[in-house]
Amino acid sequence: MALYFYPPSVEELIAALTKLPGVGPKTAQRLAMHLLHAREEDAAGLAEAILQARERVRRCHICGNLTDEETCPVCQDEQRDTTTICVVEQPGDCIVVEKTGQYQGLYHVLHGALSPMEGIGPNDLNMASLMQRLQNGNVQEVIMATNTGVEGEATALYLARQIKPLNIKVSRLAYGVAVGGDLEYTDEATLGRALQGRLSI
Amino acid sequence: MALYFYPPSVEELIAALTKLPGVGPKTAQRLAMHLLHAREEDAAGLAEAILQARERVRRCHICGNLTDEETCPVCQDEQRDTTTICVVEQPGDCIVVEKTGQYQGLYHVLHGALSPMEGIGPNDLNMASLMQRLQNGNVQEVIMATNTGVEGEATALYLARQIKPLNIKVSRLAYGVAVGGDLEYTDEATLGRALQGRLSI
Repeated sequence: MALYFYPPSVEELIAALTKLPGVGPKTAQRLAMHLLHAREEDAAGLAEAILQARERVRRCHICGNLTDEETCPVCQDEQRDTTTICVVEQPGDCIVVEKTGQYQGLYHVLHGALSPMEGIGPNDLNMASLMQRLQNGNVQEVIMATNTGVEGEATALYLARQIKPLNIKVSRLAYGVAVGGDLEYTDEATLGRALQGRLSI
Repeated sequence: MALYFYPPSVEELIAALTKLPGVGPKTAQRLAMHLLHAREEDAAGLAEAILQARERVRRCHICGNLTDEETCPVCQDEQRDTTTICVVEQPGDCIVVEKTGQYQGLYHVLHGALSPMEGIGPNDLNMASLMQRLQNGNVQEVIMATNTGVEGEATALYLARQIKPLNIKVSRLAYGVAVGGDLEYTDEATLGRALQGRLSI
């Protein structure tokens, strides 16, 4: 006897949802049922939002950040300090830095980090345009805000070595214990760096 | 100074994703970035799958299960045993029963359970068509396979009371310990029911 499952259109929806990161078959089923029963504007709205974002979003031709326009709002903003560039791996990292409210400079988004394991070299990242910005511009400091894993560190070091000859200051985010964090739960490598970088009070 | 976040089209995508169940702002950001960087056919494919499923899926006019056709494949299948109807709350429950490979009868999908708390009464569920099937047909047994929570139990009891006058046998799934399960982790209510329903070996 034939066993029956979801209708083809629902199976296709489940298959498409399963391709999302962190979404397994069970979650995909739950999401599919939700989308079938959601209000029309919510379901169609999601489909439309995916298509719209894919169509509109591009990379800022200056800094590489995601934008709906030719030039991103940060690069357009004349109030920003154009002598400082903060280099990050991903667009989301800019937002984290913005949220601190402590940074007034510009950004440069690499869209990844050097990774010999994954075959990602300097030419696969948004690096050439950074060097061009530094050669043409009035930049005095580049802050490396790449992630602190092996790949982010290697990327920061590689770029620092490229930038040094231009006589531009290169800095790195400080390492240390998290604000509000328990020492007990701080890993040894981080605590070691926090000791090395201790501040007088 | 103005702070910058994602471009509007990305913010809209994140907002649409946040409406999905179990998806918070962080997950929505991760999904949005994935969708922006995914292959065109995967991203557009998901949007298309949502719209297609919304357009095509309807309820089978006999059993209420989800189908892309007028009548679902189970109701169309002449090999199925038309004397037995298994009543479930959700379309996904049919699939779980199908997967046992031990059921050859038909289904009836209520699309929910009675819930005075949420204001869901008999008229809000796919119950009238079940009673009609029972009155017209050659059904000899109705198996209540609603969930075993308070609402599912109340729904099964309510329907059983409606069906009894028609001289049709009404049964309920057996309660007991899970196959392969540890007694230690079986809740008392379930273990109590398993004792009551003990089988001679």
